Amino acid sequence: MPKGVLLTICAPSGTGKSTLINMLIHEQPEFEFSVSCTTRPPRPGEVNGKDYYFVDPDEFISLRDRNFFAEWAKVHDNYYGTPGKEVENALDSGRSLIFDIDVQGALQLKKNMNTGLFVFVFPPSLKALEQRLLKRGTDDPETIRTRIRNAHHEISQSGLFDFWIINDNLETAFNDLKAIVRAEKLRPVYSPRLPGMILKGDTEP
Amino acid sequence: MPKGVLLTICAPSGTGKSTLINMLIHEQPEFEFSVSCTTRPPRPGEVNGKDYYFVDPDEFISLRDRNFFAEWAKVHDNYYGTPGKEVENALDSGRSLIFDIDVQGALQLKKNMNTGLFVFVFPPSLKALEQRLLKRGTDDPETIRTRIRNAHHEISQSGLFDFWIINDNLETAFNDLKAIVRAEKLRPVYSPRLPGMILKGDTEP
Repeated sequence: MPKGVLLTICAPSGTGKSTLINMLIHEQPEFEFSVSCTTRPPRPGEVNGKDYYFVDPDEFISLRDRNFFAEWAKVHDNYYGTPGKEVENALDSGRSLIFDIDVQGALQLKKNMNTGLFVFVFPPSLKALEQRLLKRGTDDPETIRTRIRNAHHEISQSGLFDFWIINDNLETAFNDLKAIVRAEKLRPVYSPRLPGMILKGDTEP
Repeated sequence: MPKGVLLTICAPSGTGKSTLINMLIHEQPEFEFSVSCTTRPPRPGEVNGKDYYFVDPDEFISLRDRNFFAEWAKVHDNYYGTPGKEVENALDSGRSLIFDIDVQGALQLKKNMNTGLFVFVFPPSLKALEQRLLKRGTDDPETIRTRIRNAHHEISQSGLFDFWIINDNLETAFNDLKAIVRAEKLRPVYSPRLPGMILKGDTEP
């Protein structure tokens, strides 16, 4: 069973990251979101172990201090974290994981895992991003200014990612993303027993 | 001008490497073969500086001893070598290079250049390779036995390459190769000024 791929995608808000992720999951169902821990209370319908692992703050902090998390963050008084062992087990059992996390989380994850694809998606320009956010009509002008300021900061950290995609045309950007995943799966680490099987006359299942 | 890609493809004889390389050059004319130095005499029609740089053995050995070559080999009493500086200049000026060299040359090149894609192409199995060579009908049984022995040795060194492609179906193998090249070009090193241009509102030419 070949190993799964760890894929982390970051992008400024409004760049089309969620659309790209949904397209990938739709086309390649082997990808799933990793399940995180959080201290925020479950919302109606959320299932423990499926949507999140719901833990209390003391437990979270104790886990964090024992390096249980591959990445963690505090957002609006709630903690969120990704269990490192869980990620490794998923990949080893051939499941591929998508991480939809912020730049800080991505860089923590990159540091703590010795595997994975870290992709940064750019808008065609900051001006184009601002126009998209205005057109979307869901944010007030102050929120849009904040998002543009954040985008500026996020783009300034893009140099730490492995791959850059410009989402100018959605189809081109999606083909870029698929090429990154396809090429990654051709790395020897995903099928370490291949040479032996070719020599014996078998190929991978 | 984004940097060019250095692509090295190795495969046992009969695996379809030349076909894949010709398909890539046909579809992506930015790729060209790197020009090597050799001590063998020019054949009729061969042009110095285009097909090869033709040098005499003393000159070759002197160049080799000054680390002029990114890789070199002696084959049937003739020397062949790839000028390292020439490769760097080509890549810096945006030209992409293909290396069609043997496993030993590829591994030297990988060691001496700090860039590049090193791809190993497998036959579906050694048995399938033997059948292809028999079907091709250009080699006598002894030559085929030698090729299979060499294939065994080459496959045993495939672990040192970055990517593995199985040429079971030519179209699939070619799509794999194109995905590797496409993904590579999305690495930040090929467009280092991109974040600044996005922030300013421009994108790469």
